[in-house]
Amino acid sequence: MSKPTLAISIGDLNGVGIEIALKAHDEITKLCTPLYCINKTMLDMACGILNVQAPKDFNLWHVEGEFQIRAGEVDSACGKYSYDSFMSAIKLCEEKRADGVVTMPIHKEAWMRAGLEFKGHTDLLRRHFKKDAIMMLGCPQMFVALYTEHIPLKDVPSYMQTDKLLSFLLDFHKSIGDKRVAVLGLNPHAGDNGVLGDEEREIEEAIKKANQTLGKELFFGAVVPDIAFTPHFRSSFNYFIAMYHDQGLAPLKALYFEESVNISLNLPIIRTSVDHGTAFDIAYTGQAKTLSYLNAVKSAISLYTGRFRVSAP
Amino acid sequence: MSKPTLAISIGDLNGVGIEIALKAHDEITKLCTPLYCINKTMLDMACGILNVQAPKDFNLWHVEGEFQIRAGEVDSACGKYSYDSFMSAIKLCEEKRADGVVTMPIHKEAWMRAGLEFKGHTDLLRRHFKKDAIMMLGCPQMFVALYTEHIPLKDVPSYMQTDKLLSFLLDFHKSIGDKRVAVLGLNPHAGDNGVLGDEEREIEEAIKKANQTLGKELFFGAVVPDIAFTPHFRSSFNYFIAMYHDQGLAPLKALYFEESVNISLNLPIIRTSVDHGTAFDIAYTGQAKTLSYLNAVKSAISLYTGRFRVSAP
Repeated sequence: MSKPTLAISIGDLNGVGIEIALKAHDEITKLCTPLYCINKTMLDMACGILNVQAPKDFNLWHVEGEFQIRAGEVDSACGKYSYDSFMSAIKLCEEKRADGVVTMPIHKEAWMRAGLEFKGHTDLLRRHFKKDAIMMLGCPQMFVALYTEHIPLKDVPSYMQTDKLLSFLLDFHKSIGDKRVAVLGLNPHAGDNGVLGDEEREIEEAIKKANQTLGKELFFGAVVPDIAFTPHFRSSFNYFIAMYHDQGLAPLKALYFEESVNISLNLPIIRTSVDHGTAFDIAYTGQAKTLSYLNAVKSAISLYTGRFRVSAP
Repeated sequence: MSKPTLAISIGDLNGVGIEIALKAHDEITKLCTPLYCINKTMLDMACGILNVQAPKDFNLWHVEGEFQIRAGEVDSACGKYSYDSFMSAIKLCEEKRADGVVTMPIHKEAWMRAGLEFKGHTDLLRRHFKKDAIMMLGCPQMFVALYTEHIPLKDVPSYMQTDKLLSFLLDFHKSIGDKRVAVLGLNPHAGDNGVLGDEEREIEEAIKKANQTLGKELFFGAVVPDIAFTPHFRSSFNYFIAMYHDQGLAPLKALYFEESVNISLNLPIIRTSVDHGTAFDIAYTGQAKTLSYLNAVKSAISLYTGRFRVSAP
């Protein structure tokens, strides 16, 4: 199988994305053919500030636009450019010129100032493809998919409905294949048999139906949320479904903050992302770390080759 | 300062408590004078099953009662005995015969079968002392106090009220003294300026008022929940207040499962506990680990000497 071509959405140019792309270029070209969605003028400007030379084989996909880079500033032109870079990367995939998209961080306020009303990459992907993208974060040791994401905590319990959960579980299975998955409960002690909440009944019913539909016991739960991420439990599962944002992401980031990546599942294209922000405080200072980006590239390649899970449970 | 006397509430004798107490005796007697709330008949029976000799200086405080130990079984007589052991330990403190209580795990269903309607140790302590005990879990690297505990997740948002939060913060300060404390938000991204929920306003108002009342900036927040337990953030804080059970305990147990202890603050007596259950599956097999118990003993001693925090932030 030949090396996949990955379209790199360059992110907010006032942040750390371009520095990371330049730093990691040699390493990722061993694994894939990157195509950077940025024009030469903007690349040269960034290289000038960073005082580095762009590698000779740093292939560009021209994205129109020109503005002054101001490290660490929220800027509408910069926001607009990061959006255009992302849209170009998506288009490259849709036209089969690229096999996947890896995204550098955008800045949501910069998007807002540019009049872009999306909450972020995933929201844009959902609307663009009219599909319920599944957001999964993690690293090879542990992946966490989010059943609900960016909603107030008080709205979470109303999403605990067997039919919606079932369709999420089946979509998730379609994306990752036959993997054993721990599905978390909602309440402390997973409700303690109804004493501390009863939403686990809906969750358990969905798990039962999903396993019946698939003819295999792949989903397990409802797992007690504060036990799910203990070392012993993690040694039995690599995939977790959290009922809400912080239930999954607080333990994940406690354990694997710098290594994690963000993967969009259930979409017609492959898309992975670094799991950090624009890091304006250290932009253009040479301090940005490449680990999350390298893992995002590797995850995109694993999705491409169909070998998503590397290590067996 | 002389070694404190600690009353050891022996826990459910069908579980791992007595094995841990016997294993750890020599080590803890270097730090304190333990007084085990169990009678000789029951101790001898346990030692017989474990095939060990009780140490000569294993001082007992006689707790009436006799029944057959059945490793790993839920039993009402055993539940009742663990309750009596705990009540004896509390009384020893009230009568100043002991300086603190360290509890081994009880089994809630065994308590229920014995007709004891308490949800656990902390619930009993609250009712006994008619005080709002604060439940704090952790280890020297990181302590998490729970603002709400064993309630359904859907009920949590209604507790986000400035006055209640303020009184919790001030009670907490009374217990641990002048420590810097990270107070978590409720919603993803701590509400993202109200876009993902607005309970953070109440939290932030309570923090402001608490700091004003104390004349010091000790409470910080509302902290973004999935950032609070990242390595960088943890390097700045040792104390965290979580708004709900799993928000604090899932990351804590992901990081420090076997080391953690459970500490009851805001009570007239010192009480610490192991942070694990009766572990019926390994009871009387010699596999029980003592680390959580040793840390519980050390925490009780630190509370006694007033040097609770060992390492400076």
